[in-house]
Amino acid sequence: MNSAGKSVLALSGGVGGAKLALGLADVLPPGQLHVVANTADDFRHLGLHISPDIDTLLYTLSDSANKNLGWGLEGETWNAMDALQRLGGDTWFRLGDKDLATHLWRTTLLERGESLSQITDFLARQLGIASRVHPMCEGLVQTTVRSQGRELPFQHYFVKERCEPVVTGFSFEGIANARPNANVMALLRESALAAIVVCPSNPFVSVDPILQIPDFWPALRDHAAPIVLVSPIVAGLAIKGPTAKMMVELGMPVTALAVARHYCERYPGLIDYFVIDGSDATLADEIAALGVRVAVGSTVMSSRADKQRLARFVLDLVA
Amino acid sequence: MNSAGKSVLALSGGVGGAKLALGLADVLPPGQLHVVANTADDFRHLGLHISPDIDTLLYTLSDSANKNLGWGLEGETWNAMDALQRLGGDTWFRLGDKDLATHLWRTTLLERGESLSQITDFLARQLGIASRVHPMCEGLVQTTVRSQGRELPFQHYFVKERCEPVVTGFSFEGIANARPNANVMALLRESALAAIVVCPSNPFVSVDPILQIPDFWPALRDHAAPIVLVSPIVAGLAIKGPTAKMMVELGMPVTALAVARHYCERYPGLIDYFVIDGSDATLADEIAALGVRVAVGSTVMSSRADKQRLARFVLDLVA
Repeated sequence: MNSAGKSVLALSGGVGGAKLALGLADVLPPGQLHVVANTADDFRHLGLHISPDIDTLLYTLSDSANKNLGWGLEGETWNAMDALQRLGGDTWFRLGDKDLATHLWRTTLLERGESLSQITDFLARQLGIASRVHPMCEGLVQTTVRSQGRELPFQHYFVKERCEPVVTGFSFEGIANARPNANVMALLRESALAAIVVCPSNPFVSVDPILQIPDFWPALRDHAAPIVLVSPIVAGLAIKGPTAKMMVELGMPVTALAVARHYCERYPGLIDYFVIDGSDATLADEIAALGVRVAVGSTVMSSRADKQRLARFVLDLVA
Repeated sequence: MNSAGKSVLALSGGVGGAKLALGLADVLPPGQLHVVANTADDFRHLGLHISPDIDTLLYTLSDSANKNLGWGLEGETWNAMDALQRLGGDTWFRLGDKDLATHLWRTTLLERGESLSQITDFLARQLGIASRVHPMCEGLVQTTVRSQGRELPFQHYFVKERCEPVVTGFSFEGIANARPNANVMALLRESALAAIVVCPSNPFVSVDPILQIPDFWPALRDHAAPIVLVSPIVAGLAIKGPTAKMMVELGMPVTALAVARHYCERYPGLIDYFVIDGSDATLADEIAALGVRVAVGSTVMSSRADKQRLARFVLDLVA
């Protein structure tokens, strides 16, 4: 049991966020971690429904993520992709043979009328995961990356064009009609959470879609639990993914301060604690001036011990 | 060029028929073989459109069929199926990793609005196949196996229940509204074919669905080309698949004569030549009495040379 015996709710995108989620799962008693996953990266490809952030969380939390690639499953093989290439098929989004099973089964269960929530619960149980992973909503929300007059579906930007286009903004199609995941809302209504943790995920394409689901961020803000955000920017660098590149293109300084400003301006009153890395300690006063408590820790998660240490740091903050 | 320089049209189901199709492709000049494939076994599984007989033909004609298994691709791996089993998914229909690429790409192209004919042509070209493989029709026709009060979709009968249920009949849902493949009808209208060959496939679930597409068998009968049928029953045995078992259950003697009677009664005037194996030579007179010419040859195709020899035998009959 953690200090209060209460559950923790984390918001996460893919790889960066999943690292802290794994740390939290490791240090919390089994079943006390709930993760809300961004699903605005979900897309249909090769006839399959693919939920990249849910899968990264499931694979990471079941300790079956591919550590060399940084995505997908360990011990993966690529025979389907090789055969698809021979058939002249689309291979820009690499789907490993083992990973394909996840997409095939999710697509099958969706066609049978099961919800993405039910399916994610089922897959998590099959993979032996004690934590709960919740899709942020049931409806379809899809991130579009705007780039100098072009509009790119997220995976085209992220994978097909390798984040090369210069971003000028984002939109989340369908979000006005999306409703927050009912299980998460029930958890917020019914549970005294120890903390709500915003994992160090991309603010623009991983966390914003979650927070902008109608009524969701006010429900988080109004909950009694403290909200802790871990900066995805450390010493001017994004640990993972295109966050820093996007900040440059959006005309923002690439600093933890700019990240804090982004959240404090868009979601006033939401963040209670803002965790920055020791290398950014000089920014602490300016961030504190935005009205959040600043905690300086060690936020780079290379090893599993790093992940657990950061998770303990976050939980100790609010204990 | 064959003796007349004309194309040959073959009708085929899966494995048994594909053997003769390969023999014909080998002995005919490139591009002169057209195969009409049964698609009444097609089904949707794991979100994918699967066309088992088309694929058996494509894999056989590209010499990439798995000779040990008797189905699927050579050098196949099963990592997706193993992963699917761990996820609690449906694994009764075994889809190899390489084979999955075919279904993924076909499903993708169907969703993009391409026709099964266009897709089959495309896949055949990618696999280096000079022959044309034509789906029997564009619409969806689906075989149901009736079994003592139960109605089983074909693949449930054939794969999931391993042909164990006792069959009492068959129906082909959707066939009344199906139209024969337009390319095949154009070929029949415009070409002087050397022969129309009914391959040694299952009469009830492979050839009947093709012949019963509205207007199709009369178009074959009325074409000038001779029609040659190779018996799928040799010495009271089906070389491949459940033909013999079905004949017993339908109350038919398991003989080439009963096969000939089946075709002559259902499709009067269709068959010109009926090819039987030497081991069935004693049936020749009774079969001839049905109004067909009987040719006695060697119809068991083990080696590639066997397939080519039977193909030459068939073509020489009508030369």
